Amino acid sequence: MSRTLIRGGLVITAAEEAHADVLVDSGRVAALAAHESSVAQAWTADRVIDATGKYVIPGGVDAHTHMELPFGGTFASDTFETGTRAAAWGGTTTIVDFAVQSVGRSLREGLDAWHGKADGRCAIDYGFHMILSDVTEESLKEMDALVEHGVTSFKLFMAYPGVFYSDDGKILRAMQRAAADGSLIMMHAENGIAIDVLVEQALAAGHTDPRYHGEVRKELLEAEATHRAIQLSRVAGCPLYIVHVSAEEAVAEIATARDMGLNVFGETCPQYLFLSTDDLARPGFEGAKYVCSTPLRPAHHQAALWRALRTDDLSVVSTDHCPFCFSEQKELGRGDFSKIPNGLPGVENRMDLLHQAVVDGHINRRRWIELACATPARMFGLYPRKGTLAPGSDADVVVYDPHAEQVLSAATHHMNVDYSAYEGRRITGQVETVLSRGELVIDQRTYTGHAGHGQYLPRTACQYLI
Amino acid sequence: MSRTLIRGGLVITAAEEAHADVLVDSGRVAALAAHESSVAQAWTADRVIDATGKYVIPGGVDAHTHMELPFGGTFASDTFETGTRAAAWGGTTTIVDFAVQSVGRSLREGLDAWHGKADGRCAIDYGFHMILSDVTEESLKEMDALVEHGVTSFKLFMAYPGVFYSDDGKILRAMQRAAADGSLIMMHAENGIAIDVLVEQALAAGHTDPRYHGEVRKELLEAEATHRAIQLSRVAGCPLYIVHVSAEEAVAEIATARDMGLNVFGETCPQYLFLSTDDLARPGFEGAKYVCSTPLRPAHHQAALWRALRTDDLSVVSTDHCPFCFSEQKELGRGDFSKIPNGLPGVENRMDLLHQAVVDGHINRRRWIELACATPARMFGLYPRKGTLAPGSDADVVVYDPHAEQVLSAATHHMNVDYSAYEGRRITGQVETVLSRGELVIDQRTYTGHAGHGQYLPRTACQYLI
Amino acid sequence: MSRTLIRGGLVITAAEEAHADVLVDSGRVAALAAHESSVAQAWTADRVIDATGKYVIPGGVDAHTHMELPFGGTFASDTFETGTRAAAWGGTTTIVDFAVQSVGRSLREGLDAWHGKADGRCAIDYGFHMILSDVTEESLKEMDALVEHGVTSFKLFMAYPGVFYSDDGKILRAMQRAAADGSLIMMHAENGIAIDVLVEQALAAGHTDPRYHGEVRKELLEAEATHRAIQLSRVAGCPLYIVHVSAEEAVAEIATARDMGLNVFGETCPQYLFLSTDDLARPGFEGAKYVCSTPLRPAHHQAALWRALRTDDLSVVSTDHCPFCFSEQKELGRGDFSKIPNGLPGVENRMDLLHQAVVDGHINRRRWIELACATPARMFGLYPRKGTLAPGSDADVVVYDPHAEQVLSAATHHMNVDYSAYEGRRITGQVETVLSRGELVIDQRTYTGHAGHGQYLPRTACQYLI
Amino acid sequence: MSRTLIRGGLVITAAEEAHADVLVDSGRVAALAAHESSVAQAWTADRVIDATGKYVIPGGVDAHTHMELPFGGTFASDTFETGTRAAAWGGTTTIVDFAVQSVGRSLREGLDAWHGKADGRCAIDYGFHMILSDVTEESLKEMDALVEHGVTSFKLFMAYPGVFYSDDGKILRAMQRAAADGSLIMMHAENGIAIDVLVEQALAAGHTDPRYHGEVRKELLEAEATHRAIQLSRVAGCPLYIVHVSAEEAVAEIATARDMGLNVFGETCPQYLFLSTDDLARPGFEGAKYVCSTPLRPAHHQAALWRALRTDDLSVVSTDHCPFCFSEQKELGRGDFSKIPNGLPGVENRMDLLHQAVVDGHINRRRWIELACATPARMFGLYPRKGTLAPGSDADVVVYDPHAEQVLSAATHHMNVDYSAYEGRRITGQVETVLSRGELVIDQRTYTGHAGHGQYLPRTACQYLI
Repeated sequence: MSRTLIRGGLVITAAEEAHADVLVDSGRVAALAAHESSVAQAWTADRVIDATGKYVIPGGVDAHTHMELPFGGTFASDTFETGTRAAAWGGTTTIVDFAVQSVGRSLREGLDAWHGKADGRCAIDYGFHMILSDVTEESLKEMDALVEHGVTSFKLFMAYPGVFYSDDGKILRAMQRAAADGSLIMMHAENGIAIDVLVEQALAAGHTDPRYHGEVRKELLEAEATHRAIQLSRVAGCPLYIVHVSAEEAVAEIATARDMGLNVFGETCPQYLFLSTDDLARPGFEGAKYVCSTPLRPAHHQAALWRALRTDDLSVVSTDHCPFCFSEQKELGRGDFSKIPNGLPGVENRMDLLHQAVVDGHINRRRWIELACATPARMFGLYPRKGTLAPGSDADVVVYDPHAEQVLSAATHHMNVDYSAYEGRRITGQVETVLSRGELVIDQRTYTGHAGHGQYLPRTACQYLI
Repeated sequence: MSRTLIRGGLVITAAEEAHADVLVDSGRVAALAAHESSVAQAWTADRVIDATGKYVIPGGVDAHTHMELPFGGTFASDTFETGTRAAAWGGTTTIVDFAVQSVGRSLREGLDAWHGKADGRCAIDYGFHMILSDVTEESLKEMDALVEHGVTSFKLFMAYPGVFYSDDGKILRAMQRAAADGSLIMMHAENGIAIDVLVEQALAAGHTDPRYHGEVRKELLEAEATHRAIQLSRVAGCPLYIVHVSAEEAVAEIATARDMGLNVFGETCPQYLFLSTDDLARPGFEGAKYVCSTPLRPAHHQAALWRALRTDDLSVVSTDHCPFCFSEQKELGRGDFSKIPNGLPGVENRMDLLHQAVVDGHINRRRWIELACATPARMFGLYPRKGTLAPGSDADVVVYDPHAEQVLSAATHHMNVDYSAYEGRRITGQVETVLSRGELVIDQRTYTGHAGHGQYLPRTACQYLI
Repeated sequence: MSRTLIRGGLVITAAEEAHADVLVDSGRVAALAAHESSVAQAWTADRVIDATGKYVIPGGVDAHTHMELPFGGTFASDTFETGTRAAAWGGTTTIVDFAVQSVGRSLREGLDAWHGKADGRCAIDYGFHMILSDVTEESLKEMDALVEHGVTSFKLFMAYPGVFYSDDGKILRAMQRAAADGSLIMMHAENGIAIDVLVEQALAAGHTDPRYHGEVRKELLEAEATHRAIQLSRVAGCPLYIVHVSAEEAVAEIATARDMGLNVFGETCPQYLFLSTDDLARPGFEGAKYVCSTPLRPAHHQAALWRALRTDDLSVVSTDHCPFCFSEQKELGRGDFSKIPNGLPGVENRMDLLHQAVVDGHINRRRWIELACATPARMFGLYPRKGTLAPGSDADVVVYDPHAEQVLSAATHHMNVDYSAYEGRRITGQVETVLSRGELVIDQRTYTGHAGHGQYLPRTACQYLI
Repeated sequence: MSRTLIRGGLVITAAEEAHADVLVDSGRVAALAAHESSVAQAWTADRVIDATGKYVIPGGVDAHTHMELPFGGTFASDTFETGTRAAAWGGTTTIVDFAVQSVGRSLREGLDAWHGKADGRCAIDYGFHMILSDVTEESLKEMDALVEHGVTSFKLFMAYPGVFYSDDGKILRAMQRAAADGSLIMMHAENGIAIDVLVEQALAAGHTDPRYHGEVRKELLEAEATHRAIQLSRVAGCPLYIVHVSAEEAVAEIATARDMGLNVFGETCPQYLFLSTDDLARPGFEGAKYVCSTPLRPAHHQAALWRALRTDDLSVVSTDHCPFCFSEQKELGRGDFSKIPNGLPGVENRMDLLHQAVVDGHINRRRWIELACATPARMFGLYPRKGTLAPGSDADVVVYDPHAEQVLSAATHHMNVDYSAYEGRRITGQVETVLSRGELVIDQRTYTGHAGHGQYLPRTACQYLI
């Protein structure tokens, strides 16, 4: 395999900023050396990338995507092929997607189905979490086997009764199993039982527009479920990761738990940091583009989320990428917001939006990499292969131009969806070149990757526990 | 300058664990390369250190020492020469000591005096904080000049009325100046005015033994002062670093501030993690060996401190190294605990005690390096020269044997003091070899350094602020 | 109707202690006058009670009793006749019992059944709360009618799945109705779904003794449900009363809500104040006598409960009187703690145990009356008829000897149950004479009442809301 | 002495609302009887007051007044004669004023001076707190003697350095003495040392207008001092009463302490509930009318204060009545806000403003009486003589017309000050008739009292402690 040398850039990882050249050999980071040191000057390579004036960063790790997810009678519009290609365009070189257990079926069957969708089609590496839709004696036993296979995190839903919902007894049982086999429980924390009452009442009152989606899924019901999940995890003794936190009150519950030293972690997503109920209330059904769950919140929640990202009460920014086209898909919910497929596109935008947050002063550069690369890699057992640039790591490297200007738009993005949630937004910073295990996937903004390059990543346990 | 190659070790920094060889050139880390990579195999060097089976870590940064401190009519027993040599023995390659302004004198005069004590005598590199004993219009103005000189942190005392004590008005003024010039305020947070009342009452009641030192300096009075310092720093808008936190209640005040996203930081010391009021109550005046301020606390506080070190509510472990010999020095307080010089030896023991905490499961290896090396370096503007091993960093490197066994004792330690606070304690782990800017200071447990190798380190601002 | 004059006692109400004579006329308190005032001296009456050296207090209001409750295939052993007689013996002149809706039946049908059990049989006055076992469109509508009938509080269960349990959607609907019709929601706050998993696991592990009842019903699961109930009540906008709080962690949830000014109230019971898991762990199945839900807690919780009674984070002490004989009833659970009928006797002991708390210094005399008489009367819309001694109030009066000594025992108590939960406990203080609406029910420790004296009390809304 | 009968009113106390006639005999409440009961109908009296449609309430207890206080080179403009007459007009029948120890003088000397000002001049009864300006061994000893004399509360200042200020050591010593002799420490909680720095800086910056008084006395510095006072009281073991709480952040500190069950109490004043920094910022030096300390706060603090009055985190509403005429007195501070005498008139307005709060729905009627009458009486050892209407209580009775309308104005008020802080404010409710120990002071809005009627009230200890 060939050697690649990335010269002259500022290497940024979660912990370091170093003016260093990076030597890639056989798909791995072989070495880092100080710019213009004699050792660096002696290096030769088959390919030399000039990163002068650029950042050299680990490829992004998006730990929350839903390619081709079946939802509400349709499917998320990105396949693993289109979605991972778009991810690469956005500087993300690893995704962890959610395989789904169908009710009445085994975990293995669900996982196999997702392998079937992904294997041989991905532009970048990928792993799987498993959604537990049907907690039974059998599926609990299967958890251990999946951990052996490298699926070390299991997602449960306190929302979506009749679909993904598990009651507190099932949640407790799954948590107990996780405590025993060393896996991590991921939780969609909203009180779906109560929300469904409010949905029914809203519709009965003729409140059918997309904005009511935000009104019925109340902040307090996210906070309540977050608190409940935490208490159940304490009873079970397992670690807990709350996905897509959007409400300030839910952040407070997580902060309290973390102050106690509990293994409780929180994730948020760019849509909660950059969008709000103002978008959900856009006229003419356009709000449907912004329907996701947990929902967008009033804009004042954003400050709380940014603060939590700085204090590490929230530790990860993922996308919850789950695109549905406005045409034909989102439109299924005209006249009934509860029928709008839940989800937003974003896998391509995450690294850029977070760099914008650096420019805007919300976070610093190292925290950008920590939130987007290092922590998700550690959280989900992919470190040190992924999430950093250290000798021995996979050579998933992004050359990022911090000065480039771009405008986000459906006209230019690479996700297979007919709108952008950030249409027209100006961003400072852009991905220039992307390597995945040493191979060029994006070369100075030309796609040079191919479906099937991406490999399945068996994962080890969460690395944040003592 | 010569090249040194450290082969075969596990390189541990605050963020990474990598099986990498480290190439040192001209006193800096030139490069890191994966073990047995072709690039590493090609390296040659004047000196090769075999670190197989060992850790390769950044040299420790002890941000709180008091060499030769005048206190209570005597002087701390370690000079900069003996103290920095002992530090090197213990794997610490940087200290930040406290220069003292005398009442009625300028900051510069105090700083010059400390330069006079340290320059040309240190075995390792050193910087200075400045103790403000006399906040006046003149000394406030001098703060800016000291920042230019690389003294970017100023310590104030809410304790020790008549000696170092500043009232809240002086504290507020100094904090305002720090807010303006970008420096960091360090605080000894105990309500000394109230404590002195309790001291007087205790002595009047015939309570003269060392253990009363712990009883009068109450947890609530540490917590109160911590809270007050935080509120004053909010009024002034400056960052705040609380030194030697020992009480659970004080930790809680810091945690609350940090949850709010404030620039408030906490330090603790090994004595609070490993010792307790049981030691202070040792019979026959032996408790005097354990007299320091803040005082040792009942043992149950230790769990709160360890938890806070895990949650990052406490961010740094320094030593507050301030040794006084039992004979002749500590004995000044026989019959009156308030006359016992305050301070404990520890600069040599910190890295080992914290490694023991790794062995005991209190923290993980990366957190060990973060608490002892990386965070103090960042906190006090020494990063990336100090505190990490990255291309371009100073080659302050420790080869640490994680399997060696040792017993701490005054008989074997190198600090200039006639007792060990940890006499007889068994430790797993030991420093084997130490480089300072690429030069061998400890070579397989032989001292090869020399007074005068250590250089003064001008410091930049605290790197934790956005 | 005749006049009764109570002379010479210390009249104690929730707010006052006055040396006053009390004139009762036509079943009501006609007047209070200062001892030996000319106006008092002029008073004449048909009956004069000498209360010199005694307390004259309002009759107790026990807002939580379960006479003849069907539970686990048996019935609580006190009928309304025996239970209200015992209540009178203990200085309680009003009970509010729980009528039960059967699943599939109307509220009215349940209420009628309870009227059938109580009407014409009670020695003292009584009202009803309604247990909602089956929240449907119909039963929600019926709530309004019951409020009209004087049943202004509705109890829901987060415990006992398959029996009384309501899910969060049903709870939310009932709370919304309560918000609309001005009624109060009472909540048994334990996560019964999770607890049932732990019960099943305990039994499967052979843990069948009564003490496991306490172990599976974890403090955290009481606290969790308490938090959840509070959040749901905030969404609905209704007032909330948490019954039988036993865990310190649940108290903390209530305290937080009350600090926010929410209409959230907490009740505890004597068993949680005076008994503990030590009782539940008594050998030889004797622990079964102490099986109730929420369960008894480790003894350290008692201090938190007493403190909360002082800070008004807990506002009411009721009994949750629900006696089952040890013989034949409690014994149903030999070999399976989950089959032990849940409940303890206590309606006769409450006033005495709380007076003992006055003697022991936990609360003062006025707080005794507030917790046991005034607040439950206000909380459940019985004030000022009940719970105080003011001109116009019902003449429910107790002459209480604060110096008498007694020993609690099944041998001497009047409850229809074969054991006392407080067997052998010494109490300072005893009821001497009891009037109910001016009629003597207990006359110097002779029972002079009769079944059928007691009248049904329609109640108005909770009086604690603004 | 004559008998007075108050017929037909609604008697409201802290705990009761009763339709009762009140019989006054020999200056005391002899009896209360239900309207139209035979016993009431039989009553005869020398004077009969018809209170039909009116409230009959206990006379107000204003526990915080400063008649003739020397401050900033002038004196508060109300003498004991004018001030107590105005109090009576406003329905207040008891004041507790602050005697002042001068620096270098004894407590007794200060107390004698205040007796000299008050004795023989008051229209209503009065007691004294003592301001400790000079905590010395001698004055500490004197505290016990004053307690014997009926001065059971001692006020300390954390503000006003060089005038009333005590440092934390003096505060701790006084608190220890209070813990020993059963007295109550009252605290002006503002960090005066820090505030004086900000005052100096503001003036140096040319910020001389009254509104800067509010800006320099920051909320955080009130909260800080409140926290500090609480911690010191915990060390000393004494009860603590924080006067004139105005900042939400200070309320939070008190709430935290009260949740812990500590004997910590908070008072606020009408000016903080009804006025704000908007008043302080009135143009043309008119803001000077609103200069008091703690200062008025931005209007959003009012909601927090009202909530705390409902939750009992604040327990008393006093006036801090300390009037200075705008002309000649407030004008001393033209061009230098720090020279404006601190204080507002209000002793006449308190009962009416709080009744307006009842009308506005902030508190209910009983809470009105509790905050304004009952709790201050209990807090300062005047109960049950003052603060309630019970057999044996002093006949300090107000007949209050809840439907009358009035407009507050300097043109009509009776305080000796040339402005009203509430000029033009419409109030529903008005005092109609006032009795002090059975004698008519205000008779249907005619003043019938006389200087010298009022008696000195020796006080017992705070009645809120267990």
